[in-house]
Amino acid sequence: MSETGFHLQSSARAAVTEDSAAAGALRLAIIGTGLMGTSIGLALRTRTGAYRIAGWDPRAESLHAAYERQAIHRSASSLADAVSDADLVLIAAPVDHVSAIAQELARSAPPGVTVTDMAGTKRRIVQECESILGSRFVGGHPMAGSELAGPGCARADVVTDAPWIITPTARTDPGAIAAVETLIRNAGSCPIRMTPLEHDRMAASLSHLPHVVAYALMGSIGRPLDPGTLRLAAGSFRSATRVAASDPEHWTAIMSDNADAILDAIDRLQSRLNSIRSALADADAERLRALLADGHRT
Amino acid sequence: MSETGFHLQSSARAAVTEDSAAAGALRLAIIGTGLMGTSIGLALRTRTGAYRIAGWDPRAESLHAAYERQAIHRSASSLADAVSDADLVLIAAPVDHVSAIAQELARSAPPGVTVTDMAGTKRRIVQECESILGSRFVGGHPMAGSELAGPGCARADVVTDAPWIITPTARTDPGAIAAVETLIRNAGSCPIRMTPLEHDRMAASLSHLPHVVAYALMGSIGRPLDPGTLRLAAGSFRSATRVAASDPEHWTAIMSDNADAILDAIDRLQSRLNSIRSALADADAERLRALLADGHRT
Repeated sequence: MSETGFHLQSSARAAVTEDSAAAGALRLAIIGTGLMGTSIGLALRTRTGAYRIAGWDPRAESLHAAYERQAIHRSASSLADAVSDADLVLIAAPVDHVSAIAQELARSAPPGVTVTDMAGTKRRIVQECESILGSRFVGGHPMAGSELAGPGCARADVVTDAPWIITPTARTDPGAIAAVETLIRNAGSCPIRMTPLEHDRMAASLSHLPHVVAYALMGSIGRPLDPGTLRLAAGSFRSATRVAASDPEHWTAIMSDNADAILDAIDRLQSRLNSIRSALADADAERLRALLADGHRT
Repeated sequence: MSETGFHLQSSARAAVTEDSAAAGALRLAIIGTGLMGTSIGLALRTRTGAYRIAGWDPRAESLHAAYERQAIHRSASSLADAVSDADLVLIAAPVDHVSAIAQELARSAPPGVTVTDMAGTKRRIVQECESILGSRFVGGHPMAGSELAGPGCARADVVTDAPWIITPTARTDPGAIAAVETLIRNAGSCPIRMTPLEHDRMAASLSHLPHVVAYALMGSIGRPLDPGTLRLAAGSFRSATRVAASDPEHWTAIMSDNADAILDAIDRLQSRLNSIRSALADADAERLRALLADGHRT
């Protein structure tokens, strides 16, 4: 299998330099052609000829839009059709759909296919997908995205120069890791290895908590939000609540899946807010200044 | 006095259409040529010839930079020199310096001069400045700005189309209000009237609280922040902490000055965070979904 991995690596590397013929291209299946799946297709097709991309999405309109935008070479008639001859499968689906897709891949994808995902949590997904797909599954999560949704909002540069975390385990096949790292580099991103637990803790602080805060801030200013009020909002409020435009359904699934790590992150934030609150309540400017200085982003 | 106000209005209106000669221009003094004072000077000089602008700043280098950037026509040798013949004075200084400047203006500005400020809090400042300057003081606060500082970062469009709140009282001279509203329109912004209390409550929720959150978020992820960590931060974290780059000294003064309203805003946010926290802890996806939907920014 690592031989396949080597082949994936070398051909993809070549692709970065001289655009390889479709003949020599790897067969990539992108499952889920929403904003991220379509963006990766666009990134790969813009940057390299190394992949022949089949796409599938349960929503026909999303699949059609991804094809219209030329993010995929072929829009498949089913998940099984998309992966039937795949060398590599990128699951670009919500966290609560990844394992079910892995089950389907176990039935319909060729043996030896490398599978990776882009979901925002990793512990449960890696455990489940590894038990379903074995050593050829490599968990992944690009630390990039958008509060927008759908292939219409996809951009070829969404992951450009962004860190793309992968979470291989002791069991993961080295060739599969190499194939996924090559895919990530060809998409213009930078692969970084972590354990699933390291990822989930980091993501809780640097991605999930800011989403909790954005929804909480919007919710805390009172509903219904009269149109005049948001117009008055300073840039600071707009920045802090930008991602509260993200799909609540999607984020309910992510937060539920990483609850323990997010609870720790919320507790650390609450303790900071309590310190600032008490410095304000005590009119202790010295303590307040020290707290702001400690949180000063330099 | 309202006659002066009318004159200010009409001449400034004319200025928007045909660039009025320097002769007919109003004498405006900008006290404080940091990012905001310099930006307003640039905005006015870019958009209209209605004002002849003198500037002063206690930091010689800031004053020099504002003059070099042509945000002001004249760099004054002292505050008294800047305002000696002023029709209108714009105090662009930190919240904790405004009243002291008003004291100086009471000594050195011509009688009948209209004075306004741009500070982020209004109750105390309006009360103090009104007692010092009387009916010609009009409190103001543009709901725009930047986490950056200094005339070098000033931009002519910082307040373009942004709401600029003014907080006249029953005592405020109508001519002074008209003069300040004309100045605001000539800078490309939109004047909105509120009471000082309405302003401070609104600013606590829509500007001060997001700053508290930004400093708290940065502080909560642990110090020293290893360079790799922030690199991993998703866009959501960067957005939420952007204003934590603001000067802690400056924000200690603003928060201290509006503590009661900010405490209320922090309490509302913490109660939201507690609700989300308990929904997560109870693995109650329904409740979590409802809370995110309620805070969904549409």
